[in-house]
Amino acid sequence: MRLSEAVSAQTPLVQRLLDGVATIGADPPGITRDAFGRGENDAQSLIARAAAELGLTARLDEAANLSLRWPSGHDAPPVLIGSHLDSVVQGGNFDGAAGVIAGIGAIAALQAAGIAPKRDIEVLALRCEEAVWFGLGLIGSRALLARLPAGALELPHARSGLTLAQSIDACGGHSARLRENTPLRDPRSIGVYLEVHIEQAPQLIEANAPVAVCLANPGNVRHPFIRIRGEDAHTGLPHRFRRDAALAGADLSLALERLWLDEEKAGRPMAITIGRFHTPAARHSLTAVSGGFELSLDLRAYDAAHLAALEKRLGAIAAEVAARRKVEIVLGERSAAAPGPMDPALIEALSAAAARCGIAAPRLNSPGSHDANNFAASGVPTGMLLVRNQNGSHNPYEAMDTPDLMAAIGVLAEWLANG
Amino acid sequence: MRLSEAVSAQTPLVQRLLDGVATIGADPPGITRDAFGRGENDAQSLIARAAAELGLTARLDEAANLSLRWPSGHDAPPVLIGSHLDSVVQGGNFDGAAGVIAGIGAIAALQAAGIAPKRDIEVLALRCEEAVWFGLGLIGSRALLARLPAGALELPHARSGLTLAQSIDACGGHSARLRENTPLRDPRSIGVYLEVHIEQAPQLIEANAPVAVCLANPGNVRHPFIRIRGEDAHTGLPHRFRRDAALAGADLSLALERLWLDEEKAGRPMAITIGRFHTPAARHSLTAVSGGFELSLDLRAYDAAHLAALEKRLGAIAAEVAARRKVEIVLGERSAAAPGPMDPALIEALSAAAARCGIAAPRLNSPGSHDANNFAASGVPTGMLLVRNQNGSHNPYEAMDTPDLMAAIGVLAEWLANG
Repeated sequence: MRLSEAVSAQTPLVQRLLDGVATIGADPPGITRDAFGRGENDAQSLIARAAAELGLTARLDEAANLSLRWPSGHDAPPVLIGSHLDSVVQGGNFDGAAGVIAGIGAIAALQAAGIAPKRDIEVLALRCEEAVWFGLGLIGSRALLARLPAGALELPHARSGLTLAQSIDACGGHSARLRENTPLRDPRSIGVYLEVHIEQAPQLIEANAPVAVCLANPGNVRHPFIRIRGEDAHTGLPHRFRRDAALAGADLSLALERLWLDEEKAGRPMAITIGRFHTPAARHSLTAVSGGFELSLDLRAYDAAHLAALEKRLGAIAAEVAARRKVEIVLGERSAAAPGPMDPALIEALSAAAARCGIAAPRLNSPGSHDANNFAASGVPTGMLLVRNQNGSHNPYEAMDTPDLMAAIGVLAEWLANG
Repeated sequence: MRLSEAVSAQTPLVQRLLDGVATIGADPPGITRDAFGRGENDAQSLIARAAAELGLTARLDEAANLSLRWPSGHDAPPVLIGSHLDSVVQGGNFDGAAGVIAGIGAIAALQAAGIAPKRDIEVLALRCEEAVWFGLGLIGSRALLARLPAGALELPHARSGLTLAQSIDACGGHSARLRENTPLRDPRSIGVYLEVHIEQAPQLIEANAPVAVCLANPGNVRHPFIRIRGEDAHTGLPHRFRRDAALAGADLSLALERLWLDEEKAGRPMAITIGRFHTPAARHSLTAVSGGFELSLDLRAYDAAHLAALEKRLGAIAAEVAARRKVEIVLGERSAAAPGPMDPALIEALSAAAARCGIAAPRLNSPGSHDANNFAASGVPTGMLLVRNQNGSHNPYEAMDTPDLMAAIGVLAEWLANG
């Protein structure tokens, strides 16, 4: 069987697995697969059963990540095809799971086409990619590569209340090993990390293409609790006396948006998101100027130097607004994640594989961060394929068409066979 | 005794009454005198005792407003010197009470100077001026002049839970009379309504003057629950796809602020206050674009035609922001209050009285609305004196110096004697 036909022939398997994880996560109107809980565990089992039928070797690592290996008999460092099976609360079915299923589908297609692997191929279902469960995301890949921040193992699970360490142990891992803070696998022993993931923006719908080759995942600087302190005042206070914290917040947000648009115009992609943006609810009054205001900020960009420059601009903009509005702006708590640039040779190879499949795959920056960031940051040659998807992700209306995932599986299989 | 000396001689009385109402309302660090409750009732009793010593006739009207009348033996329509004795929760001592005490002080000064009144002079302690107790302010003057909105008598008290009707009856009023919806006193039978009130902005501190003659009280248009509807989205969504409700709110607020500053520059005083300004707390997330946003708006101006024009501009600005941001903006529930212009002849007469007292009293628009608005709206010739005050009002740090109140009492007494 030709490889393209062998890929097509996997559509029923892929659909069955997509439907299976949907059933496991059913939480109308959305999907909830809780990390280190029934949702993620049952999805791991479903995938493991499918892998067993393909003769793959299953193994849980010390972080309870599931590895499904197709041994090649060759010594070359393996190709890892990873993604995650957990979801946010009331999310969609495809963010994460589609990538794991793509790995299974690609191996099934290679086997059906009678193609022997040139090196071991391993499908990796990484634990707890979503930040909702422990207030920290990408946990499986962080744990694998010794990139957990200090204290992470003591974070409590949002539902069970168990610590991350307890959660890992309860799911068959061995959290004590993680305290050694050395990688569970030497990154130099990994040949390539590849991830298939739905696109979390409608760029591929706009481009009318099923698949994109990812250029980079963004890094970010986050300030979850920016506080503005002005002065509470009576509604009749003349403007010249006001120190309105809410309007200072409005000023700050629009100044950051202008920065974003200017940077994009100059060809430097980035994004700014202000998810929390509010006067203090306890003191809400129709007839009072608010002396307090809070906001969160997620600032993301694709290049470390650019991100550092943007952070400087953020400080300058906040200082300018504070001085002009006669308020105090405290950026407060800060976290940061490095950008995850994809491997240039892999970008070329995946583009070439797409072309051989007859797919004009655009090259796009990924809107979101993924487990791939940790592999890239650990020096593993990393690549990603983004799959067309409607209505974004992290909501019940996420919508990927199976033929688009099959297109991504086709590119992946082609690259595995002839890349 | 000369009148100015007689006024000075009342300083101990005035200070005793100020201290007395402070003791009644003591709620460290602030003052709470609950309307239709112990705070307001005890303050009424304290003022009534002082009035009895001056030989004034006490009477509760059907709304439980306290009237303290100095009979003149003349038929001319009386002068009412009104204000209120309630406070907000954890407010200051002077917002309201200073005006009632000023009336008592002025009558005491006239008596000490041996000046007989040319017409009856009546000090009026109006009930429940602050909106915190029933979600509706100026209740005593509204009730007196048949200006209560429909359903007001059924509103529940924030503390006791009694309806307004029950509260009035419990305090010696007769709420059934209020259901007739005709004024308790014919406005044409009132010669003048005068109110002394602390200024709720620092304009007099800036002007270095103890007293101002008020030009007008603002009217307002209020939208307590403006809702903006965009689309929730992932933090990585490119800008061109976003329908960010929070940034639309920021845009709207700053556009309204620009309108304000432009109007002021053109000599048309007004104010805009956005007390509530927030993303929905239940859906706060660091990594999500907010599809929802809410704000409150208090728009105030001093001229009815100006207020109407501003409301048109508000509609146009909201429509422009909605179109540009691809969101829906629903202004929703609306309430309005007419501006309260002061009587031109009274403005001149009070200015002349101030000049005779050697006080260069500036003429100012009042930052806030007052019971005076209802009298002005009912056609009673109305005037106000504003007293210098630090730190605004509706907070524990409100600070009026007694000598500044004595200056206002001097102007009031001079106008009563020779105005």
